[in-house]
Amino acid sequence: MGCVQSFRELCDRQKNTNVRLSLPAVCIVWQTAMIILFGVFIRYNEESSPRWVEYRKAKNISSDIENDFYFRYPSFQDVHVMIFVGFGFLMTFLKRYSFGAVGFNFLIAAFGLQWALLMQGWFHSLDYSDGKIKIGIENLINADFCVAGCLIAYGAVLGKVSPVQLMVLTLFGITLFAVEEYIILDLIHAKDAGGSMVIHTFGGYYGLSISWMLYRPNLDQSSRLQGSVYHSDVFAMIGTLFLWMFWPSFNSAITDHGDGQHRAAINTYLALAATVLTTVAVSSLFQKHGKLDMVHIQNSTLAGGVAVGTAAEFMLMPYGSLIVGFCCGIVSTLGYIYLTPFMEKYMKIQDTCGIHNLHAMPGVIGGIVGAITAAAASESVYGHEGLINTFDFEGEFKDMVPTRQGGHQAAGLCVAICFGVGGVTQCVGIMTLFVLFSGCILRLPIWGDAADDNCFDDEAYWEVPDDEETFPQVPQYNNHMRNKDVAESNFTMEQN
Amino acid sequence: MGCVQSFRELCDRQKNTNVRLSLPAVCIVWQTAMIILFGVFIRYNEESSPRWVEYRKAKNISSDIENDFYFRYPSFQDVHVMIFVGFGFLMTFLKRYSFGAVGFNFLIAAFGLQWALLMQGWFHSLDYSDGKIKIGIENLINADFCVAGCLIAYGAVLGKVSPVQLMVLTLFGITLFAVEEYIILDLIHAKDAGGSMVIHTFGGYYGLSISWMLYRPNLDQSSRLQGSVYHSDVFAMIGTLFLWMFWPSFNSAITDHGDGQHRAAINTYLALAATVLTTVAVSSLFQKHGKLDMVHIQNSTLAGGVAVGTAAEFMLMPYGSLIVGFCCGIVSTLGYIYLTPFMEKYMKIQDTCGIHNLHAMPGVIGGIVGAITAAAASESVYGHEGLINTFDFEGEFKDMVPTRQGGHQAAGLCVAICFGVGGVTQCVGIMTLFVLFSGCILRLPIWGDAADDNCFDDEAYWEVPDDEETFPQVPQYNNHMRNKDVAESNFTMEQN
Amino acid sequence: MGCVQSFRELCDRQKNTNVRLSLPAVCIVWQTAMIILFGVFIRYNEESSPRWVEYRKAKNISSDIENDFYFRYPSFQDVHVMIFVGFGFLMTFLKRYSFGAVGFNFLIAAFGLQWALLMQGWFHSLDYSDGKIKIGIENLINADFCVAGCLIAYGAVLGKVSPVQLMVLTLFGITLFAVEEYIILDLIHAKDAGGSMVIHTFGGYYGLSISWMLYRPNLDQSSRLQGSVYHSDVFAMIGTLFLWMFWPSFNSAITDHGDGQHRAAINTYLALAATVLTTVAVSSLFQKHGKLDMVHIQNSTLAGGVAVGTAAEFMLMPYGSLIVGFCCGIVSTLGYIYLTPFMEKYMKIQDTCGIHNLHAMPGVIGGIVGAITAAAASESVYGHEGLINTFDFEGEFKDMVPTRQGGHQAAGLCVAICFGVGGVTQCVGIMTLFVLFSGCILRLPIWGDAADDNCFDDEAYWEVPDDEETFPQVPQYNNHMRNKDVAESNFTMEQN
Repeated sequence: MGCVQSFRELCDRQKNTNVRLSLPAVCIVWQTAMIILFGVFIRYNEESSPRWVEYRKAKNISSDIENDFYFRYPSFQDVHVMIFVGFGFLMTFLKRYSFGAVGFNFLIAAFGLQWALLMQGWFHSLDYSDGKIKIGIENLINADFCVAGCLIAYGAVLGKVSPVQLMVLTLFGITLFAVEEYIILDLIHAKDAGGSMVIHTFGGYYGLSISWMLYRPNLDQSSRLQGSVYHSDVFAMIGTLFLWMFWPSFNSAITDHGDGQHRAAINTYLALAATVLTTVAVSSLFQKHGKLDMVHIQNSTLAGGVAVGTAAEFMLMPYGSLIVGFCCGIVSTLGYIYLTPFMEKYMKIQDTCGIHNLHAMPGVIGGIVGAITAAAASESVYGHEGLINTFDFEGEFKDMVPTRQGGHQAAGLCVAICFGVGGVTQCVGIMTLFVLFSGCILRLPIWGDAADDNCFDDEAYWEVPDDEETFPQVPQYNNHMRNKDVAESNFTMEQN
Repeated sequence: MGCVQSFRELCDRQKNTNVRLSLPAVCIVWQTAMIILFGVFIRYNEESSPRWVEYRKAKNISSDIENDFYFRYPSFQDVHVMIFVGFGFLMTFLKRYSFGAVGFNFLIAAFGLQWALLMQGWFHSLDYSDGKIKIGIENLINADFCVAGCLIAYGAVLGKVSPVQLMVLTLFGITLFAVEEYIILDLIHAKDAGGSMVIHTFGGYYGLSISWMLYRPNLDQSSRLQGSVYHSDVFAMIGTLFLWMFWPSFNSAITDHGDGQHRAAINTYLALAATVLTTVAVSSLFQKHGKLDMVHIQNSTLAGGVAVGTAAEFMLMPYGSLIVGFCCGIVSTLGYIYLTPFMEKYMKIQDTCGIHNLHAMPGVIGGIVGAITAAAASESVYGHEGLINTFDFEGEFKDMVPTRQGGHQAAGLCVAICFGVGGVTQCVGIMTLFVLFSGCILRLPIWGDAADDNCFDDEAYWEVPDDEETFPQVPQYNNHMRNKDVAESNFTMEQN
Repeated sequence: MGCVQSFRELCDRQKNTNVRLSLPAVCIVWQTAMIILFGVFIRYNEESSPRWVEYRKAKNISSDIENDFYFRYPSFQDVHVMIFVGFGFLMTFLKRYSFGAVGFNFLIAAFGLQWALLMQGWFHSLDYSDGKIKIGIENLINADFCVAGCLIAYGAVLGKVSPVQLMVLTLFGITLFAVEEYIILDLIHAKDAGGSMVIHTFGGYYGLSISWMLYRPNLDQSSRLQGSVYHSDVFAMIGTLFLWMFWPSFNSAITDHGDGQHRAAINTYLALAATVLTTVAVSSLFQKHGKLDMVHIQNSTLAGGVAVGTAAEFMLMPYGSLIVGFCCGIVSTLGYIYLTPFMEKYMKIQDTCGIHNLHAMPGVIGGIVGAITAAAASESVYGHEGLINTFDFEGEFKDMVPTRQGGHQAAGLCVAICFGVGGVTQCVGIMTLFVLFSGCILRLPIWGDAADDNCFDDEAYWEVPDDEETFPQVPQYNNHMRNKDVAESNFTMEQN
């Protein structure tokens, strides 16, 4: 810990937000690396290659409509909207960081999905006969999922890091994600359709531990910018609503064909509906005069979708989904009211978007709900074949029973937390080094992050238009005079 | 009428918009009730339960892709977007009521869909063998439809009611809707795929009669806020466009598999396209200097989708759809220009969003078009099997003929209007009492609605950020001075 | 050329933006014409008519899910969103032309799709047995595609033309498009799934040649309005992201069922991801202080989707897609930095949205990539059946070989450019006359376009709300005073 502390002081030199060389270099070099790796490793799978016709006949598939594309493409597009519009606009609530919120979200998602296709491909889709990764629509969905973990982490450090740091954060995040996912889903054989553990718990704690590493004691110097204006809150609602509406697609995108996708969508739909009501209730109850707080409406209403992620494909039952949503709305909103200030004051974790309340805590709840629901499964509820299909009790796991599956689910949750908080819990091994390493690297002044009094400001990395000054909101008759004024004032400003 | 009048005076006590107890209480209690009712009544149907595998084999269904989920999920998601983003953002046009528009829309839709699943389930999806409601994707779509009726009603009272009143309005609205829908679709056997009658006519007149009950004679005290600003109009266009684009999904979401969904989408697409042109024409023609009015573009362009709702699945023919859209664009825009001011002045109906022009009138037109199209149906056009499939001439209605079906359609329209204007037409029976009752209840001062000079203002129910004051739009050199100023002015304000 | 020049002078009379008669007349008359033409020509095809049941049995189709509706409807809705929200909001970046951007985009798309259904129907879907055009979901997608060509052209003249001119531009554009598309796809037998040539190259050069015809030497008089404000840039990002996310649907919407749609979506997804990184790199590298420019992020990030359009359904391979995206991000961003100013200064082409960089150039690249990929096709890669399916080597083209197909692709690209720049290249024939004619017509003062000092201003064609003046951002205590002030200032303004 001491070495980290002294390292910190070493890094607190003069900040310079110029990324003119570092950002283009990172983008060009990494994109070139992607092209080379894709050239070596990535090919179409049998459902997206022109040999599909032959494959179809060989497998006796009666129609093109049974191509996996038609099962998953609508869900994929919904997930895609969540990643780019949902996460992007959810973070536009800051008054002067909307460009950064949407733009950097766009950048790191576009990079992350390529790296995720490779990392996840090596673990899950490698064809050992020719050493190639064979991709189809399911890989694209999984890549988007993987990116979601990093975007969650971005939420914790929003406004405080440079785009170059974000690229590094994403590179490490995706790598950790793929390893963690492989351990949880393949080795431990936990099920996690909507990624409560794999995506949200991991992403949440990963972001929080990065934020802890990058603690800025004088961040209040930027406090004038760390809030919203009226229209930025409306923009953020675009993000909230697209996340909320498409969450059923998120949780059902990679579940089993047929009843699996159907049930996951229903459960998520219900959990989210319940969350809205309890969020509104708690937000009003704990506020002076009972006024609602936009921060809660924008974020906590989504907690139910996170928490139902793991159990969405199980027989959680409609009322079970409502109960999960009910609790999460309360927990998440209380988190915003009490926990976020507490964590900033006493734990040195500055969590800009409150991802602990929206992702980390509900993710843990989701993992627990998943473990309980799995342990309670029985043939009388699922049917014999249904039980096998739902939990994949096949191959080397054909002797698995629900109670043991519940244990495996719990183990998966622990792995997700460990990977996320790696740096904090000092758990030994490569993941600690990874998170610590990435945390340390991100403090180096070469990365172009902003000074404490310059955070949450698009001016640092974007050409920002001059607002209002040349706005034509004047009666017609003095237009010319006004333009002269503007020209003069522009001149004056340039003189300074 | 006299008793209503005196009741009104009774209610005109000092208004207090504090909902700190009532809103949380309503949300928590009702959500708890939902959980209990769901626990008692709601289960998965055979297509969303793990027994689907067995069901599939028993019914000899060849592939998972024939699960109803894959027929309807893309349409469901489009409808979902219409409900939350479409209706929500359409109402953001007011300069200072965007939080209320999007946020309360979100709240009542999330509550409404749960109550709708129950109410519609009891009428339509009750499995008499075990007394449970079995839900699947079609139930979710129908719940969203049901909610749409209440959101339409919200449009009439936008900015003038408290969230608690809205919850009550929704509770009664959903209940009335389910009864009305059961009468129209099941008892009368009218067809109404896109809900011209069931959703739009009912929702429109329900909202208008509520608005009439809640008439505010001194509403002009809030006139400074009852208008738009530039960016709020652009936000509203997000709502307009998502409604417009996804309306084909709305009208085709629960029509017959195959040609039914296909034809409904085509008809709606065409009707909406024609509406845009006539709306622009009338808006320009009736305005000074031919300038277009954003209110018309935001609302009247959608009228064609409403009016084609009932007949969308019939053989309306492509040119028939265009004609319907053509007329509705004109009628709806003229409604905004002449009828809305007339109704406010002479009929004491203050219709904030003009739902009479967008939903009620086009809904009635849609009912009439549906009746005519049904009456004109023939085997030569539909084919023998096509006629039976399209109009469900099966079971107890197997002897029905198109001309009589036309009569049933007209009867359905009358029922929708009666249920909607219940309170006004004094039609006897439970529905009158319901609407009156709900209307009266909504005037009680305990509900926390705003005073006449405080309507259309988010300040009443939301923590609204201070705009612009701390905006960093100043040259770099005087940043510190400015911050000092701001701090001082904040201090001054707190002193007051 | 001389005659054009003198014709220009003739047209430079006093401008009058009143469109009160011309706009309604055009809308009503053309919409009426559409109804008549639809009545004469347009019918449902066998998949959208009630005879589908009989057709299904006759063709031995096992399930309703094999109706083309279920293969293409999700993609159709995505394309629909791109046309109305994507193109519409992408153009809202101007500080005071957001109404015009979204509203006129809405108007011309709604008209264009009707005319496109007819024009494309005559060329592609005419049933010679009864002289009717039979439409289904694929026709709707193609109509949206056709409209996209005209919306691209709108981008070049954004803010400088009246809605009446836009309607004329659309009428001619759709007509030219349908002819060009018929020549390229049917006569030349080039493949162009995502329309790199047919849509983007044609639309781009069509718009640029119109813009050249309408050159305004004194446009700098409107320069105060030819820029963005902070929130208008965020609105534009809504357009960008919906275009970016749904581009895989655009390129795969009308490709072959099964692997064709699957592969096109994957290729587009990858190309777009790579474009984002190189766009960010070049934008930062060529800017002072390395700050990113929103213009590049909003536009150039989409270039990869354009350029991969033709080859998306071929075996471009995942790394091939990345390479195409990589190059296009660089080319397009450099175009914005160097080429657009150059074209305005030396070539008299004022390209408001920079469509040359986003559509024309990447479209040409896409055509070339398509030709190369087609020429390099082989049975070893595609399989025997795959090759025939992918390139439609059937019927009269059953003896085609890949290398010759490559030649045909190149020929198709030339045709697209010729049709686009018709007026400029002085190529003989009807298309020259058409573009010239439409260009000349658009300069007539009867069309109501704005004067040079009044461009990019919604005031010309829209009722624009008075911003901010009555904004309630004041402490509660002086509300009344303020309102009095406002009332007085309003009074003063009216006196003037």
